Amino acid sequence: MESDQYYLMRTLKVDLGERSYPIFIGQGLLDQGLMAPYIKGKQVLIVTNETIAPLYLERLISSLPNSLTVDHVVLPDGEQYKNIDQINTIFDALLEKRHNRTTTLVALGGGVIGDMTGFAAACYQRGVDFIQVPTTLLSQVDSSVGGKTGVNHPKGKNMIGAFHQPQCVVIDTDVLNTLAERELSAGMAEVIKYGLIYDEAFLCYLEDHIDGLMGLQPDLLEQAIYRSCEVKAEVVAQDEREAGIRAWLNLGHTFGHAIEAEQGYGAWLHGEAVGAGTMMAADLSCRLGWISESDVKRVESILAAANLPIYPPEQMTSVQFKEHMAVDKKVLDGSIRLVLLKEIGKATVTADFPVELFEQTLSAGDKLGKFI
Amino acid sequence: MESDQYYLMRTLKVDLGERSYPIFIGQGLLDQGLMAPYIKGKQVLIVTNETIAPLYLERLISSLPNSLTVDHVVLPDGEQYKNIDQINTIFDALLEKRHNRTTTLVALGGGVIGDMTGFAAACYQRGVDFIQVPTTLLSQVDSSVGGKTGVNHPKGKNMIGAFHQPQCVVIDTDVLNTLAERELSAGMAEVIKYGLIYDEAFLCYLEDHIDGLMGLQPDLLEQAIYRSCEVKAEVVAQDEREAGIRAWLNLGHTFGHAIEAEQGYGAWLHGEAVGAGTMMAADLSCRLGWISESDVKRVESILAAANLPIYPPEQMTSVQFKEHMAVDKKVLDGSIRLVLLKEIGKATVTADFPVELFEQTLSAGDKLGKFI
Repeated sequence: MESDQYYLMRTLKVDLGERSYPIFIGQGLLDQGLMAPYIKGKQVLIVTNETIAPLYLERLISSLPNSLTVDHVVLPDGEQYKNIDQINTIFDALLEKRHNRTTTLVALGGGVIGDMTGFAAACYQRGVDFIQVPTTLLSQVDSSVGGKTGVNHPKGKNMIGAFHQPQCVVIDTDVLNTLAERELSAGMAEVIKYGLIYDEAFLCYLEDHIDGLMGLQPDLLEQAIYRSCEVKAEVVAQDEREAGIRAWLNLGHTFGHAIEAEQGYGAWLHGEAVGAGTMMAADLSCRLGWISESDVKRVESILAAANLPIYPPEQMTSVQFKEHMAVDKKVLDGSIRLVLLKEIGKATVTADFPVELFEQTLSAGDKLGKFI
Repeated sequence: MESDQYYLMRTLKVDLGERSYPIFIGQGLLDQGLMAPYIKGKQVLIVTNETIAPLYLERLISSLPNSLTVDHVVLPDGEQYKNIDQINTIFDALLEKRHNRTTTLVALGGGVIGDMTGFAAACYQRGVDFIQVPTTLLSQVDSSVGGKTGVNHPKGKNMIGAFHQPQCVVIDTDVLNTLAERELSAGMAEVIKYGLIYDEAFLCYLEDHIDGLMGLQPDLLEQAIYRSCEVKAEVVAQDEREAGIRAWLNLGHTFGHAIEAEQGYGAWLHGEAVGAGTMMAADLSCRLGWISESDVKRVESILAAANLPIYPPEQMTSVQFKEHMAVDKKVLDGSIRLVLLKEIGKATVTADFPVELFEQTLSAGDKLGKFI
């Protein structure tokens, strides 16, 4: 770090006892050497993908102390490559370069890279350290917080994985300048989710600043990412193993996973599917009488302002939804449990809803524009 | 359980806080319904292999409550199948049968089945319950205790895995009656190890009763298995994540893993390699002046009485040993750390030994009968 360099940065501590870790958020953090104190051994393996490597790999490598041996592996880009074969590619690299138990893996990329790198770190020699450098808005506000790692299986998303916490997370808001607009929207779906499930004031902030956020104003992004991570960190700290409140984070996800699975992973971005899934959750919450029709319109407006799809794929039937939802992880002993909204700013998890209303929501999703 | 049935059983509690679990040891325990209280959900997947399935699968299934849905998967038998492909086979079965987060996996088999089932349980939906029913002496005294799970990689043994504790372990000494003699000896290598590293009185017990143990006398087996598990449980309870004393359990293993890797996994049984490796560790301990030549002879005698190889493969060179040992997990930052004997009944871990003495032990291993 240059001594005459000043930059704005906020630090958030995720409180998980002996597995606590900091999240650094700010502009230009990528090559500020923030992660060096969190690397315990002499070996580092950076895991990244073909899109990110040309943009940021050299900058990251050059920011690391010369005393370290730094190797890297570049994986293909895309959700369709989030599988055990790619995990094996990481293992091959670790073993070819003889990385030992004190190695640190660094995930430089979006959620797919983060989830796979974290899972490889969880399993290599039964667990080594890893650091997250998320390069998409989605991974910055979601998959880099909470310790969930893993890969997809042909029969289900994120079915294989582990809980493994990083040593630290470095979020550089500048990297969003190279992010595709669709990816920015997909990330914003999760940001909006935090307002909906936990903090109406934050939702108001997002409603007030959505245009500036979509225009990548750094101060707005930093605040939105900070509060998103803070909400997630608060929820995860209360419930690390997802026994209760953590399930709120899955608002829109059970519907969304069905959309992703039906369309084939990668056709819809995760955040896009969550956007449409959030509308379906809001629709069912309204049918249950928990939120008003104007609340639903409010959800629709903010999603639309973030350029997110608010309806599931036109051709997708309720039968297809139910088939995919029956194998979702949120299904316990055969009954479908959903995260719904008790009010704007407060979620709930329930398997106790009239099946007719659930069917109405699924069928409304069949036809564009037919939500409440 | 029949109310008029009496059988001898000992229960050992492995104390790991909220991850504590019992080990039941005795004759005829396989179908006594002992595991039923430890199954929390409605689904069970039994994982076994082609050798064990015809012998014990039906008995185990029929002992489970009718209220459970019990599926099973039968894997090929052998260390060469301890790989990620077989883990995928388990995942496929779980997903095809739609097992949810409350499922319980039951490992019915030796260490390979136990390690793979435990690893699959650790990773399926980021962690589900599992129960061990070890059917070899080796797995009864070693791999069913301590929570280590995992698979091999072409470049190294047990390189991929997780720490995951079972809900309970059911050890039926009767199943050893169908165990091959070579497998019995291989298991005895680990039993002997517990005496050498931790408890000279137990070593004396083994020396006094080795013939009866090799003749499968149930009371002797029960006592030897109980004490072995107790020693391992004590060691693991002190050091769950292998930061210190737990490494003692690897006496003979760093040499042994080199033998296994050089010969190709499965050519030598794990316990056979550990037997020869234990002799090499004793040899180096003697060269360091820690144990006497008569101590080395004592190690040799008990290993020989258990029909174990006491020398590494004749053609294996010290260069080959060092090549394999350099990639072993016990290597930290390039220096080879070995478990050696300070005295009979007490081990130590050290990387601080004269390289000439280490070379002498490796070279002695090149020539049959040339140990101290």
